[in-house]
Amino acid sequence: MIISPITSFPLHLFKTIKMNTELLIKMITDSWRKEVVATNKIFDNLSDEELMQEVAPGRNRGIYLLGHLTAVHDRMLPLLRFEEARYPELTAVFLESPDKAVEAIPSASQLRQQWKEVNDTLSNHINNLPGDDWFTRHANISEEDFIKEPDRNRLKVLLDRTIHLSNHRGQLLLLKKKN
Amino acid sequence: MIISPITSFPLHLFKTIKMNTELLIKMITDSWRKEVVATNKIFDNLSDEELMQEVAPGRNRGIYLLGHLTAVHDRMLPLLRFEEARYPELTAVFLESPDKAVEAIPSASQLRQQWKEVNDTLSNHINNLPGDDWFTRHANISEEDFIKEPDRNRLKVLLDRTIHLSNHRGQLLLLKKKN
Repeated sequence: MIISPITSFPLHLFKTIKMNTELLIKMITDSWRKEVVATNKIFDNLSDEELMQEVAPGRNRGIYLLGHLTAVHDRMLPLLRFEEARYPELTAVFLESPDKAVEAIPSASQLRQQWKEVNDTLSNHINNLPGDDWFTRHANISEEDFIKEPDRNRLKVLLDRTIHLSNHRGQLLLLKKKN
Repeated sequence: MIISPITSFPLHLFKTIKMNTELLIKMITDSWRKEVVATNKIFDNLSDEELMQEVAPGRNRGIYLLGHLTAVHDRMLPLLRFEEARYPELTAVFLESPDKAVEAIPSASQLRQQWKEVNDTLSNHINNLPGDDWFTRHANISEEDFIKEPDRNRLKVLLDRTIHLSNHRGQLLLLKKKN
């Protein structure tokens, strides 16, 4: 045990602050997990037929949102510097095109499987990333710019995507027929 | 300047970790602000008439979501231990009752004004809260339980409410007529 001979040295403060950092990482990663679980619950309760409905008249269909979310989460793999995207072909259909612009889209069952796989892969990386690594840059910012904007880190990506997911989950909720 | 005589003492680490904590508070409070701004943009673009529409057939009307969000944010004032709620009467109508269950609800213009006032008040407190205070308990957990569950702090409330706001913002987006 190291006991600092300088009584004014804030060793207890150091511990408190370190604890707060760990706590914050836990808070944000927990929010992410909770949001994914809540979204899965909606998808699991929707039939493939219900997924083909629009969330509101003239708006995105459930299947488009499923594809959109899968594409966005798939791109998190390289953005978080975990690994390469698994389904880059989803980008053209679900990110660069609006719903109904592309005629031939993947089936609901294929998208459901990809959605699960992408989130499982992300989840595995997220659970294993050492705390300090969350504060390193994401892939879309240079080392140079990151010095000036340290909040553009990997944890910020997770926070932003949690909020993004919640936004679309609110819309997906509208698909389920009310009893 | 204090220079530690123990070379192994991680003074630089202390600084890094302290910086990360400040960064995280900035990330979460920035997300909150950004989400409120984005939501205000939607409300400002909707006429009082459009606010009376349902976000999807048989679902909540825009005005109900405005009242709901105002009630939730108003309750954040005591939950974050800032001050008393300003409009506790909103709870019965917009939290404890579903839309259309209560006939006489406040007007759109009154709710718009209350929404703005509540968020301005919150914003003022949020901007002035010292960093360490974000890691203290919120009002719905006892000092005793907080020792066991330190993630139930004030910053977690802000994070949860940001995600909640995003969820409803996704629905409010559906109210605006597409060009």
